[in-house]
Amino acid sequence: MREGETRLCDAAARYVARVHRLTVGDRLTVFDPRSRLEADAEIIAVRSTDVRVRIEPPREATNVPATSVSVIQTIGKGTKMDDVVRDATELGATRVIVGIGERSVRLPHARLRERLERVAVEAARQCGRGDVPTIVGPVPLGDALEAARGEALRILLQPGAERRLGEVLANHPSGTAVVLVIGPEGGFSDAERTKAGALGYVSTSLGHFVMRTETACAAALGAIAARG
Amino acid sequence: MREGETRLCDAAARYVARVHRLTVGDRLTVFDPRSRLEADAEIIAVRSTDVRVRIEPPREATNVPATSVSVIQTIGKGTKMDDVVRDATELGATRVIVGIGERSVRLPHARLRERLERVAVEAARQCGRGDVPTIVGPVPLGDALEAARGEALRILLQPGAERRLGEVLANHPSGTAVVLVIGPEGGFSDAERTKAGALGYVSTSLGHFVMRTETACAAALGAIAARG
Repeated sequence: MREGETRLCDAAARYVARVHRLTVGDRLTVFDPRSRLEADAEIIAVRSTDVRVRIEPPREATNVPATSVSVIQTIGKGTKMDDVVRDATELGATRVIVGIGERSVRLPHARLRERLERVAVEAARQCGRGDVPTIVGPVPLGDALEAARGEALRILLQPGAERRLGEVLANHPSGTAVVLVIGPEGGFSDAERTKAGALGYVSTSLGHFVMRTETACAAALGAIAARG
Repeated sequence: MREGETRLCDAAARYVARVHRLTVGDRLTVFDPRSRLEADAEIIAVRSTDVRVRIEPPREATNVPATSVSVIQTIGKGTKMDDVVRDATELGATRVIVGIGERSVRLPHARLRERLERVAVEAARQCGRGDVPTIVGPVPLGDALEAARGEALRILLQPGAERRLGEVLANHPSGTAVVLVIGPEGGFSDAERTKAGALGYVSTSLGHFVMRTETACAAALGAIAARG
């Protein structure tokens, strides 16, 4: 995003002209989540969905997450990574790492990261978030666990685990950097659980029911976001 | 579900024969979430996906939520009620009330409740839950707010509300009966907020970002489920 006159992209232009019915002279705030910038702007021309604006000097985006929250999503046969990234963006995750585990029978397709980055930008615009989570991977799950071992609170989501997520969160002040590891359908292998345990990841659950991956991700991030 | 010999329904039969590869003589537990019953059973015949079992005397289902959690979902233009019910079932909600608010421009289609009941049964089977949430409505939002005013903790989810959901939950012991009210896209009207406030519903948020309805539901229920 640069200071000066420019044409809004189609999605933003439709939003401005059709949804908010703004017109010449109206002022708005424009966002560039990818570069974590925002700026005041004024509409200088509207023709159907062709909208031109004059952008004032950009500043750092203000509506961004206050806490570092990473999600390691182990990819499985039915994993809907688009949904995971969309939910993670809305719920304030700062990083999404796509992990390939022992039971990841489906190999991620080429250019997955690029696609997920586009999903994150679109989700950020829709939910009013001024930045996007960093998308990492796909990488082997073991490497992802190693890479995130520096986070203060390391959580493995495990259906039926004795400790509840809420209990573990309550033992750490809100604002603690968290990494959350979510398995594929079918769960983690024994070797993966052992490795995670050795790296200080704590197994916790959201109860006794087996959730779909997308539900687990949104639910666990919700428990973290609820803390503020 | 009755004691005696019966043929499994197609979905259950496929699961038994194809996914778990069970065969004659194998034992399993069968569930009837709609009647909140479970029973031990033995496979007596398998032919392709035609599976016959002998069911022993049914007993009350054991894997059921321990806490009463109601969701009032105000229906909006894009509300994906199937997703809401599926998530709510996986996350242990005991009741889902479909509310029609002032901004519910889309009228729910006929037979919505019957369809949502089928979605809940299917979700319960998949997540190993022994019962289903009760589906209520569609009813006017005001009536739903009145109907649930007896729950000990009444929460209105409001993007940007000053109090975080986690803070309010922390002030009540886990096990407290909760009702959670979720708005349509575009949010509640002023009159709806005022009415809810008068009935003791507390406005809380999951942060500053505007979530899609399905995300909000899963995230807020996740914060409750995390408490155990």
